[in-house]
Amino acid sequence: MIASEIESAAMRRAIALSAFGLGRTSPNPPVGCVVLDREGRVVGEGYHERKGEPHAEVNALAAAGDRARGGIAVVTLEPCNHHGRTPPCRQALLDAGIARTVIALIDPTSREEGGAARLRAAGVDVEVGVLADEARVVLGPWLYSLGTRRPQVTWAYRVGPDGRIRALTDAQVDALSGAVDVVLRGDGHVVEGVPGGHGTDAFHLPSLRAGVPLDDLCDALYDGGARSVLLASEREYAENFLRTGLVREAVVLVSSNGPSSTPSGEGASVLPPGFTLRDVSRIGDDLRLDARPQEQGQITDSGV
Amino acid sequence: MIASEIESAAMRRAIALSAFGLGRTSPNPPVGCVVLDREGRVVGEGYHERKGEPHAEVNALAAAGDRARGGIAVVTLEPCNHHGRTPPCRQALLDAGIARTVIALIDPTSREEGGAARLRAAGVDVEVGVLADEARVVLGPWLYSLGTRRPQVTWAYRVGPDGRIRALTDAQVDALSGAVDVVLRGDGHVVEGVPGGHGTDAFHLPSLRAGVPLDDLCDALYDGGARSVLLASEREYAENFLRTGLVREAVVLVSSNGPSSTPSGEGASVLPPGFTLRDVSRIGDDLRLDARPQEQGQITDSGV
Ligand SMILES: [Zn+2]
Ligand SMILES: [Zn+2]
Repeated sequence: MIASEIESAAMRRAIALSAFGLGRTSPNPPVGCVVLDREGRVVGEGYHERKGEPHAEVNALAAAGDRARGGIAVVTLEPCNHHGRTPPCRQALLDAGIARTVIALIDPTSREEGGAARLRAAGVDVEVGVLADEARVVLGPWLYSLGTRRPQVTWAYRVGPDGRIRALTDAQVDALSGAVDVVLRGDGHVVEGVPGGHGTDAFHLPSLRAGVPLDDLCDALYDGGARSVLLASEREYAENFLRTGLVREAVVLVSSNGPSSTPSGEGASVLPPGFTLRDVSRIGDDLRLDARPQEQGQITDSGV
Repeated sequence: MIASEIESAAMRRAIALSAFGLGRTSPNPPVGCVVLDREGRVVGEGYHERKGEPHAEVNALAAAGDRARGGIAVVTLEPCNHHGRTPPCRQALLDAGIARTVIALIDPTSREEGGAARLRAAGVDVEVGVLADEARVVLGPWLYSLGTRRPQVTWAYRVGPDGRIRALTDAQVDALSGAVDVVLRGDGHVVEGVPGGHGTDAFHLPSLRAGVPLDDLCDALYDGGARSVLLASEREYAENFLRTGLVREAVVLVSSNGPSSTPSGEGASVLPPGFTLRDVSRIGDDLRLDARPQEQGQITDSGV
């Protein structure tokens, strides 16, 4: 059976829901789920709202109740098969009587005996790879982070009328930090989980002031559970990160009053070296440029 | 001669500059230009700031002055070759003694005897196609509009906790309208050039209240000079536009408090039918989804 239009629409809804978990679920992935009944009607939806709270499937099944029996679970990531804080979602789907499960992306940590295989073995019809590219819009940083064992870093900075790179203002950091786990400043400050995230004790991080080597810092961030980092520093500190290859995204705010016609001492660059412009938008009189490394293709994983 | 690293960096700067013209230059294209001297140093930069004002090349050459002689002009769109409000930029480049011109995109309106050909004929070294894809991030709507003789439409709406589609609030419209020529509301209001744009008499538009057919409205918008439109309406009015194929982008704001687990009567869709998720970001507790039609590839034009 091939995913229907109804299932594709449900997957888009599940992906949208999953994004509400961004910046709040790490080290767990932000996942969304929509449950359809036998007739293809939406009877429940949910997402993993916060680390330690129920997984997406459990929330969606709770909303659906008995209407899930014989129905379809549409979920952005392969249901888990391990006993953690909560029972495995694979079992919750079976208990609810789900007849079919539609999955966007396989969990690369699931090993050979993941939730998809176990559901199939139990007689559930399972389809994998539905809208996988769109699911990666939300799950990409988590997947990338798994592959590198380091958090994915977004460097955000502003360019003044003189063409020089400067650190963001506090207000600009606030506006950009909603979807990340940790905000890192070049001056030694680590800001965690802004605005509604993990709380200050979620990550156990070394003090930047102590001059921790970058490798150790990244290891500590990952081991502490961070999967995405907003680097809100000026150029000098960021260059260390650029060399590591962990910076997968740049956000450049070009400040108001338009550019100056006076050439800057730094030459004509606006984006970090090797980055390519991907999107542009205006925010009042300012500009926002979104860029990615030139060599970056689709984030791929072994599962799909 | 192949574009150097210095020229590529200058082109990225020129593209960034060009974006400051978005929403202000129509029916002219938003173009940026950087001038390098013989040694490859940036000696001038500029962009087309507003319809009726000097073109990008003229602004950049003015900033460079005598330092442009023997130098390189890096420009996002082929220099114009026609006499309009200003003398053709092709001539301005020759007068300034520019020895080489690096162009991202050919102007499809230039016909066989465009600025590039005329510059070559005058002995200037001309290279075309440098960072063309990145230049299309800014020039795409203008190019698309030329091809269809209709403005490119972005439909922006919000999805409430009940899953229903609603028109944007005034504040949301303000936040999204910086880069477009015209804001169109389903209730009969046309808002022009927000926030700093053309002024109220820039476009001559029919009244929506009079029940103008959509084809006529789109013709009138294009003929009036509009190249990009933000459609800030609810679903019913937008569906007429969706059928025309002019909606090339959707921006969906999913409102705060997270989604409800109560299924909506409209089913599980979040994006317009046939649209695919391209980007996601969080704005405080809200979500912003960016989507494009599934069939949309790169915007192409005959010139490159
Ligand atoms: Zn689970
Ligand atoms: Zn011109």
